[in-house]
Amino acid sequence: MSEPQTQELGITESKEHSTGEWYAEVVRKARLADYAPMGGFIVARPRGYALWEGIQEYLDARFEDTGVGNVYFPMFIPESYLERESEIVEGFDPEVAWVTHGGYDELEERLAVRPTSESIITPFMSQWVRSHRDFPLLLNQWCSVVRWEATDTKPFFRTKEFLWQEGHTAHRDRESAWAETMRRLDQYEDLYTDVLAMPTLRGRKPAHDKFPGADTTATLEALMPDGKSLQGATSHYLGTTFAEAFELTYVDADERERTAHTASWGLSWRALGGLIMTHADDQGLVLPPTLAPEQVVVVPIWQDDSRGAVMGYAEEVATDLDAANIRTAFDDRDERNPGFKFNEWELLGTPLRIEIGPNEVEKDEATLVHRPDGESVVEGREGLAATVAEHLDTVYAKLYAAAERNLEEGVREAGSREELLGTIGRHGGYVKSPWCGEEACETAVKDEIAAEIVMVPLEGEDGPADETGPGDECVICGEPAATTAYFAKSY
Amino acid sequence: MSEPQTQELGITESKEHSTGEWYAEVVRKARLADYAPMGGFIVARPRGYALWEGIQEYLDARFEDTGVGNVYFPMFIPESYLERESEIVEGFDPEVAWVTHGGYDELEERLAVRPTSESIITPFMSQWVRSHRDFPLLLNQWCSVVRWEATDTKPFFRTKEFLWQEGHTAHRDRESAWAETMRRLDQYEDLYTDVLAMPTLRGRKPAHDKFPGADTTATLEALMPDGKSLQGATSHYLGTTFAEAFELTYVDADERERTAHTASWGLSWRALGGLIMTHADDQGLVLPPTLAPEQVVVVPIWQDDSRGAVMGYAEEVATDLDAANIRTAFDDRDERNPGFKFNEWELLGTPLRIEIGPNEVEKDEATLVHRPDGESVVEGREGLAATVAEHLDTVYAKLYAAAERNLEEGVREAGSREELLGTIGRHGGYVKSPWCGEEACETAVKDEIAAEIVMVPLEGEDGPADETGPGDECVICGEPAATTAYFAKSY
Repeated sequence: MSEPQTQELGITESKEHSTGEWYAEVVRKARLADYAPMGGFIVARPRGYALWEGIQEYLDARFEDTGVGNVYFPMFIPESYLERESEIVEGFDPEVAWVTHGGYDELEERLAVRPTSESIITPFMSQWVRSHRDFPLLLNQWCSVVRWEATDTKPFFRTKEFLWQEGHTAHRDRESAWAETMRRLDQYEDLYTDVLAMPTLRGRKPAHDKFPGADTTATLEALMPDGKSLQGATSHYLGTTFAEAFELTYVDADERERTAHTASWGLSWRALGGLIMTHADDQGLVLPPTLAPEQVVVVPIWQDDSRGAVMGYAEEVATDLDAANIRTAFDDRDERNPGFKFNEWELLGTPLRIEIGPNEVEKDEATLVHRPDGESVVEGREGLAATVAEHLDTVYAKLYAAAERNLEEGVREAGSREELLGTIGRHGGYVKSPWCGEEACETAVKDEIAAEIVMVPLEGEDGPADETGPGDECVICGEPAATTAYFAKSY
Repeated sequence: MSEPQTQELGITESKEHSTGEWYAEVVRKARLADYAPMGGFIVARPRGYALWEGIQEYLDARFEDTGVGNVYFPMFIPESYLERESEIVEGFDPEVAWVTHGGYDELEERLAVRPTSESIITPFMSQWVRSHRDFPLLLNQWCSVVRWEATDTKPFFRTKEFLWQEGHTAHRDRESAWAETMRRLDQYEDLYTDVLAMPTLRGRKPAHDKFPGADTTATLEALMPDGKSLQGATSHYLGTTFAEAFELTYVDADERERTAHTASWGLSWRALGGLIMTHADDQGLVLPPTLAPEQVVVVPIWQDDSRGAVMGYAEEVATDLDAANIRTAFDDRDERNPGFKFNEWELLGTPLRIEIGPNEVEKDEATLVHRPDGESVVEGREGLAATVAEHLDTVYAKLYAAAERNLEEGVREAGSREELLGTIGRHGGYVKSPWCGEEACETAVKDEIAAEIVMVPLEGEDGPADETGPGDECVICGEPAATTAYFAKSY
């Protein structure tokens, strides 16, 4: 392990009082990422990229279990392909990075660095699908995309180039494409619940904020501790928009030619931004055991006369844990004192610290310290690996519970414009209110407090299609409400 | 599984007589890749991408075992960064794709789509390394790079965008950087030997054909069945070239500032091109069991009266193999006859076919057919999973042996210019000859028969540093020989 300099170790900013600066400091000091020389780009370092690999591993297994094949399409899309679907070109044109020269020659046609790949994948689907028996066609790729946004860079949250996976699927009819859209949303929700220790809300984007060309954009929203909402993943039912633009048709069982329905779904490294923002604290990063490169660090604490016994005992503990497939670091550095080591591993987010001193050796014990809250528990040496595994589950549960509390407290209702503005202004979080469906009413809120409608209830799921009852009026304009809207500031 | 149309199944070209067309046909009909709309680009389909994932999985495990951390650096490199190392800019400038516009705005500085990442990674290494204790710094990324070459596209072998991994490492001194360069060459060699069933030769590129800025470019060369050499992977000892250009220095144990030594090493999806070219035949793809998505296909062969018994028995066989972690397909399609199925799985390269008919059911047996040579062996039902595993090893050994025979027969010597030209012209393969070291003598051969020096012996390895004895004369110009050169046509 390379050693950071002492003065670099401490987090100096406050999560509560200067969230943005604190976040940037955690990302850099925990060695997750650095800023690249070009504005808007970052470098993901080994400790940051390993978290992304953890997400990849989980999702890839789920995708494979449900029939998805991984592919790789070119990173460039000819301008004429982008232009074939008008909503895509309108939606992404302002954000496209253009390649104009290859070597010393100007290209005959500009190439877009992919902002998303529907426009290059759908035409190939149309070659590969001929009959209804070829469905479903389930493709996914892990790659980077570029969107030339002008807003400030925030590592993982907002970068001009970002890593993501994009799934693209073709189906026989609306029902199966819709089921696919929901299946992927479910898998993303499982990732958040079971791997990232983050509860989320399910919904869909209002019509004016859908993915370009989509019929429905389903979304998972996660509430950050600072009261802003993070769009955690989206899954789009695209209807026949792209299939029509790229002639994705098939011969049905009755020998008639029909147009396919498509879906696309993606999750980016913004999920890592959410993970860091949700769990980290003023001591540094806090990682759930599911993703932590080291789940446990064993720190020996000795005086000159106890060194041999402590080191031997501590090393045995580390070896036992390793053998039980618990990812364990044994910090046996002589040149650092325990306090320094505690700080460093706290900064790096290691979920559980095991302290071994003369006392532990004598009593055949180990002291376990939970990273999230510092709770310290003395446990017996026998069966320690199993005990540690339980503590890791407890640490995960603590992280999830804290995030869940934040979410539960963060959903409020408002019956008037003033209440809506005041509630978001005071508390942040989500405010649920009846809404007429017009973008103008969202704009009114946006202009005043920079909050927007991050989601409305998802139709077609269990429970009522909408939470708004008859007779409700839009919280802004007073016209009859069409749905319930979740207003929030967002990342 | 989606079904290709019948007429698409057969390979019509001959590997021996029209190698290029045959190769393109295998790639497309085995559904590995398709041509993208932009010349020079391809789409890797699930069956092709899965092979790349197999390579990734193997190498990633080896890299991780030897301390490498995966990272992700931006796909763009500012022009000014490329220009800081003059050999890099000269070497790659003619092949760089340039991004000039972000959205509607022209960029102040052009961005190169990375052709290789030394120029963006080394400056960060210089930030991360401070003292000799920070070595070795071992980074790797899996990504795509773009080189705007004008030559014809050959899927996997030669594409303007290609997938690869690029390792970048920094070291205290020459010795450790050189050891790293060799360690990675060893790992690539193991990949070829143990996963791709391809023997290779180790060597280094002649001075005029090194990686831009490198001190030494070590290479693995694989001989294709058509007599051409494939550069299978390269590992570069970069000396202090990049460290000097990007100020990668460190404080040594004696408190003095010194310049680091760096290495880089890469393997691209050309390895898949070599795999296909080496093993496939006029029936289609042939995959080693190490990489095949399905290692075994079980095909039931029944008449109306035997259907139930055969299907039941065959399904049990498939279930048994699955349970033994053998990747098994059970082809129970009713609408296809066995002959069609045989052809299709042969086209897809499945290493082992198991035929189950009434005879096998009656005698409690299974008929195993090896893909490479069609050898058919009847085996008992009991312990079949273990037997099948042995047959898979045999199939691998057959593939390797055939490639090894080709390589052994393909290395010849020549003592005169005429013999050199004639031997390559007649047989292809490698011709070893004494060489003076001057590029002009290679050019003379290149101009005449389009062969080049693909490698010279690697220095610093076991055995003699060079094979050329004192008194040998350059096969072209007759001046004193400096080394032995391996001449060959190459991909």
